[in-house]
Amino acid sequence: MRKVISREEGIELLSREGEVSFKSQSLPLINALGKRAASQVKAPFDLPELPRSTRDGYAVNHLDLKGVSESMPAYLTLVGEIRIGELPNISISLGEAVKVFTGSYLPKGADAVVMDEFVEESHGIIQVYRSVASGENVLGKGEDWPKEMPILSFGEKITVGKVGLLAACGFDKVKVLEIKIGIASTGNEVLSPGVKLIPGKIYDVNSFTIYSLLKNWGADPWIYGVVPDDLSKLIQALEELLSESDIVVLSGGSSIGAHDYTKELFRRFGGQIIIEGINISPGRPTIAGWIKGKLVFGLPGHPVSSVVSARVFLIPTLEKILKVEGDNLLFLPLLVNLPSKLGIEEFVCASLNGRGVMPIWGKSGAIGRVARGGFLIRVPEDVEGYREGEVVEVWSI
Amino acid sequence: MRKVISREEGIELLSREGEVSFKSQSLPLINALGKRAASQVKAPFDLPELPRSTRDGYAVNHLDLKGVSESMPAYLTLVGEIRIGELPNISISLGEAVKVFTGSYLPKGADAVVMDEFVEESHGIIQVYRSVASGENVLGKGEDWPKEMPILSFGEKITVGKVGLLAACGFDKVKVLEIKIGIASTGNEVLSPGVKLIPGKIYDVNSFTIYSLLKNWGADPWIYGVVPDDLSKLIQALEELLSESDIVVLSGGSSIGAHDYTKELFRRFGGQIIIEGINISPGRPTIAGWIKGKLVFGLPGHPVSSVVSARVFLIPTLEKILKVEGDNLLFLPLLVNLPSKLGIEEFVCASLNGRGVMPIWGKSGAIGRVARGGFLIRVPEDVEGYREGEVVEVWSI
Repeated sequence: MRKVISREEGIELLSREGEVSFKSQSLPLINALGKRAASQVKAPFDLPELPRSTRDGYAVNHLDLKGVSESMPAYLTLVGEIRIGELPNISISLGEAVKVFTGSYLPKGADAVVMDEFVEESHGIIQVYRSVASGENVLGKGEDWPKEMPILSFGEKITVGKVGLLAACGFDKVKVLEIKIGIASTGNEVLSPGVKLIPGKIYDVNSFTIYSLLKNWGADPWIYGVVPDDLSKLIQALEELLSESDIVVLSGGSSIGAHDYTKELFRRFGGQIIIEGINISPGRPTIAGWIKGKLVFGLPGHPVSSVVSARVFLIPTLEKILKVEGDNLLFLPLLVNLPSKLGIEEFVCASLNGRGVMPIWGKSGAIGRVARGGFLIRVPEDVEGYREGEVVEVWSI
Repeated sequence: MRKVISREEGIELLSREGEVSFKSQSLPLINALGKRAASQVKAPFDLPELPRSTRDGYAVNHLDLKGVSESMPAYLTLVGEIRIGELPNISISLGEAVKVFTGSYLPKGADAVVMDEFVEESHGIIQVYRSVASGENVLGKGEDWPKEMPILSFGEKITVGKVGLLAACGFDKVKVLEIKIGIASTGNEVLSPGVKLIPGKIYDVNSFTIYSLLKNWGADPWIYGVVPDDLSKLIQALEELLSESDIVVLSGGSSIGAHDYTKELFRRFGGQIIIEGINISPGRPTIAGWIKGKLVFGLPGHPVSSVVSARVFLIPTLEKILKVEGDNLLFLPLLVNLPSKLGIEEFVCASLNGRGVMPIWGKSGAIGRVARGGFLIRVPEDVEGYREGEVVEVWSI
């Protein structure tokens, strides 16, 4: 058996070897939400294209209002109005103002807007009771998002805010990566949900948690189903999984026998095992390597082990391959003491609770711990537990 | 104009008046991810149904190993083996043990498992070098999730962990709420993304950000499109929106004129305006009420105002109607001083940055601020800003 390596080393090795390339497709903007961008997208024009008012008021040159106050108003000549959606075909000179609305473009010569509430208008003259700074109540040309600034980089997740920014720039479609990941569970004791329970058997959990994690991450996972511990059936399943996917994820019993099957599959397909065990708990018996140019993962069979390995190893490997940052980690105070073993990187099921994070105790087979929480506390290899109140690294599932 | 009320009061009023009922549909488990449960779902059986081993080892009665150590081993008779997926048809008496694997059921009479590494087996006798506690390395009957315990409650969001738990209980389908929310943007200056930009006009941002927020929340939003400021076209649009939706969300210019159109629509349809302005910034000019038994929201036109109003007012109203908790709020230290106005509840665009939260400065029309961050810092009405290092309430967008 190969040396068990650290999670970091494992991710490094897998993202360095071979080459994964993904297809892309153009999706309507709303369907791109949560997917991964297939290419860099830059702003095609300045947002806004010209300075706009952010208030209902009067566009002025701020120099005209220097030293103005309630007791010392300024008087300006109203030379027109620019409505929302109209081009700014008026210009002003010193001593002049133009009525504008929230969203109106500014006339040439104006550099600020004074709000309605500080102005009295009468017979083409406005009386202004307040000074303004240059740029006040104005969204400058390109101030929201400048022309040519990247909106999306390759592999980036398309968030609510990015959907909004893409719409603002007129995009109704966006090219996203199609990251096809085929998932199967192995084991004679495993049944697919929906079939009648046979006494002694258990339902497949891992296909569904791994699918959900990858879907939320922005990939296109699909579930092959349950494959019994039978080499010919495993070979047949893996052939279909490889032909229909860019990446294959098997999960199986963490027993020696189950691992032997996965290793035998690598041999039969002429693949190369790169990772055989990673120094994390739970999730240690994770295998990964290459078969026919495709990444193949063999995750542990225990439901919590497999979801942890997928979250902290498989997903960071995908992120490293795409050269993108992972999701925001949280740093939160622990609400109780958390013991842990030195020498292994631990991930402890947890929930957010008021102002801190609370471990969910229990055994690694218990999927209820993931269902109750949705977070993991990372305890690095060289840390022997944390005390209540210490700030710890928290990953969302 | 009605009194501007607090966000809390507004949510209370809207969730109290009238009655919203949603349809439901049965979805395959994987498609239910991220949706809202349409009914309570309880565990149909104990998980696990019988005690299971969480290790490869030997099932024993812990009493047999009392005081056992490396220098004082115990000798037990091996009476059989229970493989994974087999029913436990063996029972043991004191002095006996059964070989088990990770996931095997325990034989009757056993209450603990001693791991392989502490055992030597030879000619039907095992030599054990370690004592175990009752329940050690065993997942007890119902210890993961007991029979009848609710997995999902009505309106609850279906997470990765809950998908896993539903699978573990054999569910391949789940009933989810269909919360149809029709969205339209109004304004003569607004164009739909994808059409050629007409100078002076802007693209519709709000339909897309509101859609994305609601989709991520678990609703079924749809976008009607852009409606010009023309009463007959607005009436026609609202008729279609009402007939196809449970809830309608309009967003329009925050100018007085735009508001008049929304109010006129309430009058024309015999509706009732409940909220006219809420004491939040940005997002103050928010209108909401009932038309023909359906909730109708009129959100501000400014992109940031409208996304904030949707996130902190519309979504919490939905949550209150469903009687569900909101998403986890975060409490994180501020990385800089944050000034704010007394007397209004402010929501400041922000990003997570290392161990704290960082405001993103800028003007309320700038959707780039949402695109750059994805979080909001809440500053309550009675707080006049925060100092660097203070722990503040953070909402994700």
